[in-house]
Amino acid sequence: MKLKCKVVDVLTSIPEALLDPDDCAIIGVRENDRVRIGGPKGEVSVLLVSSNLIGEGNMVIPESVAKRVGVKNGEEAEVNYSPSPESVRAIRKKMDGQKLEPKEIEAVVNDIYAGSLSNIEVSAWLTALYINEMDLDEIAAFAQAMVNTGDRVPFEKGPIFDFHSVGGVPGNKITPIVVSICAAAGLMLPKTSSRAISSACGTSDFVETFCNIEVTTDKLKEIGETVGGAFVWGGSMNLAPVDDIVIKIEHPLGINPRPQMLASILSKKLAINANYLLVDIPTGAGTKVPTIEVARAYARDFTDLGEKLGIHVECAITYADQPVGSAIGPNLEARECIRVLEGSEHPASVVEKACECAGILLEMAGFHDGVRKAREILSSGQAHKKFMEIVVAQGGRADLKSSDLKPGKYSADILAPKSGYVNSISNKDLVAVAKACGSANDKGAGLLLFKKKGQRVEAGDVLFTLYADNEAKLLRAKDMAERYSPITIEGMLIKRISTPEPR
Amino acid sequence: MKLKCKVVDVLTSIPEALLDPDDCAIIGVRENDRVRIGGPKGEVSVLLVSSNLIGEGNMVIPESVAKRVGVKNGEEAEVNYSPSPESVRAIRKKMDGQKLEPKEIEAVVNDIYAGSLSNIEVSAWLTALYINEMDLDEIAAFAQAMVNTGDRVPFEKGPIFDFHSVGGVPGNKITPIVVSICAAAGLMLPKTSSRAISSACGTSDFVETFCNIEVTTDKLKEIGETVGGAFVWGGSMNLAPVDDIVIKIEHPLGINPRPQMLASILSKKLAINANYLLVDIPTGAGTKVPTIEVARAYARDFTDLGEKLGIHVECAITYADQPVGSAIGPNLEARECIRVLEGSEHPASVVEKACECAGILLEMAGFHDGVRKAREILSSGQAHKKFMEIVVAQGGRADLKSSDLKPGKYSADILAPKSGYVNSISNKDLVAVAKACGSANDKGAGLLLFKKKGQRVEAGDVLFTLYADNEAKLLRAKDMAERYSPITIEGMLIKRISTPEPR
Repeated sequence: MKLKCKVVDVLTSIPEALLDPDDCAIIGVRENDRVRIGGPKGEVSVLLVSSNLIGEGNMVIPESVAKRVGVKNGEEAEVNYSPSPESVRAIRKKMDGQKLEPKEIEAVVNDIYAGSLSNIEVSAWLTALYINEMDLDEIAAFAQAMVNTGDRVPFEKGPIFDFHSVGGVPGNKITPIVVSICAAAGLMLPKTSSRAISSACGTSDFVETFCNIEVTTDKLKEIGETVGGAFVWGGSMNLAPVDDIVIKIEHPLGINPRPQMLASILSKKLAINANYLLVDIPTGAGTKVPTIEVARAYARDFTDLGEKLGIHVECAITYADQPVGSAIGPNLEARECIRVLEGSEHPASVVEKACECAGILLEMAGFHDGVRKAREILSSGQAHKKFMEIVVAQGGRADLKSSDLKPGKYSADILAPKSGYVNSISNKDLVAVAKACGSANDKGAGLLLFKKKGQRVEAGDVLFTLYADNEAKLLRAKDMAERYSPITIEGMLIKRISTPEPR
Repeated sequence: MKLKCKVVDVLTSIPEALLDPDDCAIIGVRENDRVRIGGPKGEVSVLLVSSNLIGEGNMVIPESVAKRVGVKNGEEAEVNYSPSPESVRAIRKKMDGQKLEPKEIEAVVNDIYAGSLSNIEVSAWLTALYINEMDLDEIAAFAQAMVNTGDRVPFEKGPIFDFHSVGGVPGNKITPIVVSICAAAGLMLPKTSSRAISSACGTSDFVETFCNIEVTTDKLKEIGETVGGAFVWGGSMNLAPVDDIVIKIEHPLGINPRPQMLASILSKKLAINANYLLVDIPTGAGTKVPTIEVARAYARDFTDLGEKLGIHVECAITYADQPVGSAIGPNLEARECIRVLEGSEHPASVVEKACECAGILLEMAGFHDGVRKAREILSSGQAHKKFMEIVVAQGGRADLKSSDLKPGKYSADILAPKSGYVNSISNKDLVAVAKACGSANDKGAGLLLFKKKGQRVEAGDVLFTLYADNEAKLLRAKDMAERYSPITIEGMLIKRISTPEPR
């Protein structure tokens, strides 16, 4: 039927048309069906919303749709029923617990990318993936489909090394250190990182405090092929763009289905043509991977998927019962990271973890005794030199120093309420407190830990200091820190021993 | 933070606010989070949509939200992060396959009703129900929560009898006959029916061709208490309003999760205070209940749930391998139904099914030999007399005759391509063809079957006739009928026997 168009300039991610319920009945469509809108320039299928406010004979469409079909405000357009995309069948099949064919997975990925699936359908897809899972064949096909919707970095040299942390442990600022050590040893490690999703501060969130993280695929190729290393933001390129859409649906549900997570990680490795990949799996209470058994299962998945996708994968299961190092938040983490490279500070958990990971990568490249080699490169200053080359290549200052990175101007100390030993540190609560301080959006926001697990504290000692760029946020975070008590102190040594520590 | 409001008159089912991505980052929210909008008249939480077209410092909100908080176009409103409703935790719990507490189920139902859950969240809920199911305790709590969001019919007399068909078989026009027989015998059977959802024609779709189906709860009380029977549209009252929201999300996914279906049915029985309930479970290929085993499981569910909810439930597993009677479509079904009551036509499947169902209800009320009693009431004309009382009570004409109901003016015969016996009739394909004719929106649309299973046909015999109010729809349906061949004819008797018929 023909309807008069009201064109509005409000555009949401998935194009919709609003029609009167009576017109819907005549066309034979119902809310959340599709309608095909046709005008002089062409046709486009959009989601149908039924609304009593539109009036019979009228239709509200976004400007983007009006332009594509070639109709103007007040003009008529042809509106008809349009069937759901074929990929909805694949979603149903996964809801019914069946294994999907590669072309079915590809159809879902392509339709999510094209905006042809509604929030309802993508949510059902992710829920079905969360509950019914995928086997490794399906996940490999999923990764392949995801990389096919995006760009690839056109490296002409190789082999390409890559490093990925599953995440979940706060303060994990090792990426620039690992990249710098490996690149100093001659490896090509053009690392793409992400911003915080549920964490307090992603690698890209703290790297952007001292250099540019947004590059094109051509620029990443150039830096990788000349300097060897990079630590850029993957989101600035179009590597696996389906991710951005999916994250918006995962977020309100608080889920990250295992098949989606694995496919998403591996698709980005395929996009940079990685030949060798080290996966860091931080394991500990309050992280994504709570036990060693879960970590082993992830490791098996990554290595098996690597084999299916032609990437040599190794995994490092790392200790994550408490934060890595002492800083959480963009400027604070950047400062701690650069201090390690400068050699002006030696927080054991940061240095050890970075050298262990870099060591495995060096051994994958053929070096013997990788960890020793990594330590040498770090302590000799070669890693710092390479780090500065990368910083400059990414548009940072050639005279960058750790002291350039300043914590927020508002601060508050959280004191030990009693004497004893630090019994546990809650990653989850520290993340919540750091986010309340304003991290990762406010660059000075975050916290500095002064006590780690097992250390002796006296009543009144500073356990950690909060920093914020904004006083209101500081007060809110302080209140939260006092309510949550992320660090618990146990008076009796005997009780401390009874708490098992998974390592 | 404060943002300048652009108020738009476009209102979708769930209120949304559109903000600039940079403002979202400052507030610390992301797409599909909630924001709390505050103005002089109060606060309201809405879903956040991030859009590049809004411009920093601005926000687009629907008129309904602007009114509730008391801001006008161009004025500023306070915008802050608002946490997700608690019920999202319950959705997650069901996604994780856990059993829900009654108060968790109630929270989900209440939030769906209040429009506090987004399409994403409701879709995840339904998908989780579809995959992970609910046990009977949960379903009973679910039904109770659904009825609590709606109105109840304030009957003062009793006991109340009710009749429900699970549906799925086309041409099932027995409800007015069952109601008339039972009410003629003195039972109170104030039946609420529904319109077609996926079927070609719901009870309410054909009843509205001869009387009014939209009543208030008070009017239903009055008709029930004076005339004894009714056949009104449940959707005209506010009995379990959550259903209407849920159906919009189920529809694009093509699912009707078992817990949702059972809770929805029983909530409507609770809303009319039913004491006795007969559930008709049509069983056969191409229906919702394909096999007798599935039917038995449903029957067990209904009787057990009835016990938990204080309703005496019996179930009738009925034959549904082919349509009931010969008419599909509003006017055609109404005509066949009234002809049976008038005694002018005796299609065995309609008469038998109606009398069997009415007979069980009569026995539940204490009558002996209920089917014989039902047949007597029907053949003596008492059922027709009661039917006319109900029609008049529902605003229909006192001189209503079956001949008042006319098929659509466009018609086309579908002929047998060869001679043989009717081997199978596809319910699903006939439904699709009847819908293509325009049923249930076009009242004259539908089809009349002239051959049923096992009957002998000669090449060129009319298998069925299509009717439509509109020539284009007729042609489309005819084309579909010829492609689908909903009636298959098998030449050799021996092959016909080899097809097992579940009964």
